[in-house]
Amino acid sequence: MPERVMQAYRLTEWGGPAKLTEVPVPVPGPGQVLVKVAGCGLCHSDLDMMGMPAQYGESLGWSMPFTLGHETAGWLAEIGPGAVVDAVEGEAVALAAAESCGRCRYCLAGQDSACPSGAAGRGYGRDGGLAEYVLVNDPRDIVPLGDLDPTTAGPLTDAGATSYHAARRVRSRLLPGATAVVIGAGGLGAFGLQFLGLLGAARVVAVDISPERRARAVELGADEAMEGVDESTTARLRERGGGAGVDVVLDFVGSDMTIAAGLGALAPGGAFGLVGAAGGGFGASWIYGLPRDGEVFTFQGSDLSDTRAVIALARAGAITNETEVFALNDVEEAYRRFDDGRLHARAVAVP
Amino acid sequence: MPERVMQAYRLTEWGGPAKLTEVPVPVPGPGQVLVKVAGCGLCHSDLDMMGMPAQYGESLGWSMPFTLGHETAGWLAEIGPGAVVDAVEGEAVALAAAESCGRCRYCLAGQDSACPSGAAGRGYGRDGGLAEYVLVNDPRDIVPLGDLDPTTAGPLTDAGATSYHAARRVRSRLLPGATAVVIGAGGLGAFGLQFLGLLGAARVVAVDISPERRARAVELGADEAMEGVDESTTARLRERGGGAGVDVVLDFVGSDMTIAAGLGALAPGGAFGLVGAAGGGFGASWIYGLPRDGEVFTFQGSDLSDTRAVIALARAGAITNETEVFALNDVEEAYRRFDDGRLHARAVAVP
Amino acid sequence: MPERVMQAYRLTEWGGPAKLTEVPVPVPGPGQVLVKVAGCGLCHSDLDMMGMPAQYGESLGWSMPFTLGHETAGWLAEIGPGAVVDAVEGEAVALAAAESCGRCRYCLAGQDSACPSGAAGRGYGRDGGLAEYVLVNDPRDIVPLGDLDPTTAGPLTDAGATSYHAARRVRSRLLPGATAVVIGAGGLGAFGLQFLGLLGAARVVAVDISPERRARAVELGADEAMEGVDESTTARLRERGGGAGVDVVLDFVGSDMTIAAGLGALAPGGAFGLVGAAGGGFGASWIYGLPRDGEVFTFQGSDLSDTRAVIALARAGAITNETEVFALNDVEEAYRRFDDGRLHARAVAVP
Amino acid sequence: MPERVMQAYRLTEWGGPAKLTEVPVPVPGPGQVLVKVAGCGLCHSDLDMMGMPAQYGESLGWSMPFTLGHETAGWLAEIGPGAVVDAVEGEAVALAAAESCGRCRYCLAGQDSACPSGAAGRGYGRDGGLAEYVLVNDPRDIVPLGDLDPTTAGPLTDAGATSYHAARRVRSRLLPGATAVVIGAGGLGAFGLQFLGLLGAARVVAVDISPERRARAVELGADEAMEGVDESTTARLRERGGGAGVDVVLDFVGSDMTIAAGLGALAPGGAFGLVGAAGGGFGASWIYGLPRDGEVFTFQGSDLSDTRAVIALARAGAITNETEVFALNDVEEAYRRFDDGRLHARAVAVP
Repeated sequence: MPERVMQAYRLTEWGGPAKLTEVPVPVPGPGQVLVKVAGCGLCHSDLDMMGMPAQYGESLGWSMPFTLGHETAGWLAEIGPGAVVDAVEGEAVALAAAESCGRCRYCLAGQDSACPSGAAGRGYGRDGGLAEYVLVNDPRDIVPLGDLDPTTAGPLTDAGATSYHAARRVRSRLLPGATAVVIGAGGLGAFGLQFLGLLGAARVVAVDISPERRARAVELGADEAMEGVDESTTARLRERGGGAGVDVVLDFVGSDMTIAAGLGALAPGGAFGLVGAAGGGFGASWIYGLPRDGEVFTFQGSDLSDTRAVIALARAGAITNETEVFALNDVEEAYRRFDDGRLHARAVAVP
Repeated sequence: MPERVMQAYRLTEWGGPAKLTEVPVPVPGPGQVLVKVAGCGLCHSDLDMMGMPAQYGESLGWSMPFTLGHETAGWLAEIGPGAVVDAVEGEAVALAAAESCGRCRYCLAGQDSACPSGAAGRGYGRDGGLAEYVLVNDPRDIVPLGDLDPTTAGPLTDAGATSYHAARRVRSRLLPGATAVVIGAGGLGAFGLQFLGLLGAARVVAVDISPERRARAVELGADEAMEGVDESTTARLRERGGGAGVDVVLDFVGSDMTIAAGLGALAPGGAFGLVGAAGGGFGASWIYGLPRDGEVFTFQGSDLSDTRAVIALARAGAITNETEVFALNDVEEAYRRFDDGRLHARAVAVP
Repeated sequence: MPERVMQAYRLTEWGGPAKLTEVPVPVPGPGQVLVKVAGCGLCHSDLDMMGMPAQYGESLGWSMPFTLGHETAGWLAEIGPGAVVDAVEGEAVALAAAESCGRCRYCLAGQDSACPSGAAGRGYGRDGGLAEYVLVNDPRDIVPLGDLDPTTAGPLTDAGATSYHAARRVRSRLLPGATAVVIGAGGLGAFGLQFLGLLGAARVVAVDISPERRARAVELGADEAMEGVDESTTARLRERGGGAGVDVVLDFVGSDMTIAAGLGALAPGGAFGLVGAAGGGFGASWIYGLPRDGEVFTFQGSDLSDTRAVIALARAGAITNETEVFALNDVEEAYRRFDDGRLHARAVAVP
Repeated sequence: MPERVMQAYRLTEWGGPAKLTEVPVPVPGPGQVLVKVAGCGLCHSDLDMMGMPAQYGESLGWSMPFTLGHETAGWLAEIGPGAVVDAVEGEAVALAAAESCGRCRYCLAGQDSACPSGAAGRGYGRDGGLAEYVLVNDPRDIVPLGDLDPTTAGPLTDAGATSYHAARRVRSRLLPGATAVVIGAGGLGAFGLQFLGLLGAARVVAVDISPERRARAVELGADEAMEGVDESTTARLRERGGGAGVDVVLDFVGSDMTIAAGLGALAPGGAFGLVGAAGGGFGASWIYGLPRDGEVFTFQGSDLSDTRAVIALARAGAITNETEVFALNDVEEAYRRFDDGRLHARAVAVP
């Protein structure tokens, strides 16, 4: 049987640009599954990978070349020998954004986002979803979509699930009378404020510099949207928490300034979760600067159970997932707009 | 009836030194209780109070003059009108180190160490235990000692309870196969490593620069004592956690160096608790520097339930509380030795 | 000053009926507070007290005579010497339904509903709220109402807080994709289904025999109302949980039949909370009849933090508290209707 | 290549006896692993399987004939194509007692003991470990043993892991000052009391009718061993909890009598865990009979993370695992002794 070929948007050398190229359609081996891609979301981390040095990539176990794309949804196309899948051929499915081993102590405790094997995966070191087909090594990564359209479901698995993971971490604090703050109401923050509202009974405040994003935040369910972050943000947020401070801050920006503003706004016992990768920190004295008897956390990613929870919410119509659709042929234009801040929603490329 | 007088070691003016002086023995009003002091521990924070500026002290609601000492134990001497106490006159009791209101959302949730009213209390802004008698506003603060000697029980309420509070925060992580690290095995750290051992099944590693403290740490139950912190500490600790890192670090020093070493030693999902008040921080990028999907926390103090747990352990003979006893008349000499690092154990002053 | 008198609805002898009678207006002693009653809810347990044998009552530390009523709200009228209250005279306040000591291990851990001192309290063994004034021993029991009308706020403190306590117990299970069931959508159940909806993202199903209550349940936010409990209830509920069963059942009836139906409907890992006092049990084999690796709990009451959470929700307009108002003079008629099932909402007596 | 054969102790028809017979050595297919058995523990549930009706067995998805034995340890013998295993050929390993799918919501949350696929597994419906070799479908079930002797490690995976699962459930209650009770200090209870001691700081009381088992319980670390269960047990246990009751009861018997005694002994907020399969229940009123604001749970089995924790403890020398070793040829004699109560420790059959 002649090998089938397909289009894929790939990195071909360390530090080099990605490009659309033709590669063979993969054939699922024992235990593997092939998925026909309906749409794959673009992520800011894809841009970082384009400039990654060989040494760093290899230390993560990545191999070159590989196809980009880790926010993938499509239809189950072919089931390899011995693979056990909770879906049938042709069914619409999403793929978890990260991979994990299923056997380590993290995976066995439901904390698979911390699995050491997750350092490489589909779209980051191995072939991902910006192609007509994608191979799945472990059927645990497959989540049935029911009636959801797989064309735009991809971002639920990363932008959605990462935000959900952060909101879930603070869930015990989302009690009546509490106030939870989202700093940065863009792609991830817009998900984050929806999850904070759905998972408890706290008042949700969004902080953003953009009037459009503030307006959108309120449409998506924020109880209030505040301009910021600027030097008055801490004081204004503390006031929202009845003078004593707020109970939760999720920072989807992550600069020195947003971190300092968020920490300063917290009441005793409060939680600060860092999601945004702007690279900031807090070098002043921790003993007085971190929330008294509270909690600070960061993370990169989400657990398989987060992905399933987000898709359950989307299937129930409880969340809004905003996307802009591009053809796979236009993926370079989409990344350019992403890099320039000209996208109004998460971009999805359709093969 | 002529007013009785007693000796008390007091701050009499902002920024000035403390001195032994004669003051009236207090008389318990409605709801209050008088305790005859058997012994009162000295704390490094007492030294800080001696130099505190008026403006800062007043912002905390402190009033001058006041008697120092917040690690107090003694005997119930007199019960004011209407006071309901879970002890009888003459019974040996310890006093919680911090005060709290009993009515705010923190107190009602058992998180009284975060009570805003705790900014002032016995020995910090009000009359404390370095005297023959001390007045207790709220009988909740009284913990019966049973057969424990009240002369040396005072440090259990602060050095002990604060360390316990930190160990309790990480208790869910002290599972079989886990490794927990104490940085700094001095007064608080020596308590901390005992509590980490008692509260779970993790392996406990103590890190200290002093060979004496390392030897003592092993006697107190640490599975291993390691020299440090130095530039090799992170790597050596990671190795103790099977290469992946350790699960818990409690830092009883709190310098930039110990914080960086502790954060660097953690496995994904790990917890870093800052207890030491050396004033350090971590200004490098948090998104990659904090434990992946883990937890960072700090605090100052302990809850009433922590104090009771520590005293329960001491009554059961499960912990060692090392003290050096000084007469109240020698309290200045004791503070000098404290400041110079010449104490070998927690100092207790006996009236 | 001549003693003032007031009307009070009191039990005067064990096993005897309650009656309206004239008693002195109490005067707050040290640490106490007097509240002028705006309204006091009637509870089914009041009817039980009317027939209570002396021996049982005395074993609980109750003293006869006493005024009934434990769902009280009103206005702060007078503050006794030394009492510290988080409200000012004239301010609208509610009173916690149960009393607690504030010092035991339960109170210090925020689990005051389990306080042994709670066996006697306002309206059950001591003078309660079915009078013009009520005395409060401990100002922790006072919760400011803000703009809420104290006339009808009383039921929030018991019918509301007890239901909230149960919903809070299962909160970690109210995740996206989960199903939570309320059996019995009457006074407490109507609160319960609102709280299940507010505290998480689960689908809420109400089960009731009354078409009126089912319709009302849907108006109050249940996703579905099902007729029952009958022999088909278990199977129909399991189906709602995708065949595997549901995640939470709160049983506000508590008969053998509702308990068996609820247990049978649960998925592995599920939780069954018993609130209704119909006196049922489950005598069949527990090892196979209780939810596999799940949780069964019961309780009587609520914590102070529950009362505050419910009032926070009511102040925010997030819950509906349905009441029928009676004059204190008509309180016997109100109890008759209660006993006959002729009330359509929680009854409140207004002095 | 000629097929190799081996001895296996098998059920060959529903309701019939098990017998030693010769079967082919299995060959690992894609993703599977073959383990050479060093020893396999005998379990009381094996005896139940010998009499199981076809209808019940088939409803669980069991197929006849099959080899008994679900407490297996040995050496990794052969790795099938594509299988990824965290051990090398020849390495000593234990096998999880139960199977699970790895993909359902329970498995993804670390609660694999509740996985619906676990209804059939090695030794219960499929070929188990009472043979020279056993096939493992999913390499997640394999736990490296390090220096532990695989001959006797099998019981750690079921008798050990099931007891650990119960102790872990109550871990948050094992605080200083708390009392935890084990009813029945036999095979599982002897593990249970060791885990209760290791996982926290509670006082551990064992209750058993046998003087030998009581003496052994104290050797294994119980703080006290009490004769029972009889009609005085509840009162004597309540006394151990300072009159108010104890905090935890794990019932490894599970009769009506032990359940009633255990429930009656609990303090408010306490937990009752049912492990023993004697088939008892509690049909009296739950609202007053279950622990006030406490927790009742049951379960059958353990999670993969429990198995790993138990093996970590055994490798660290922290627990005692008592066994009696029989040759596989003597397995019928071993079951007879088991059935007659003539075993003094967990029996292990060695091929």
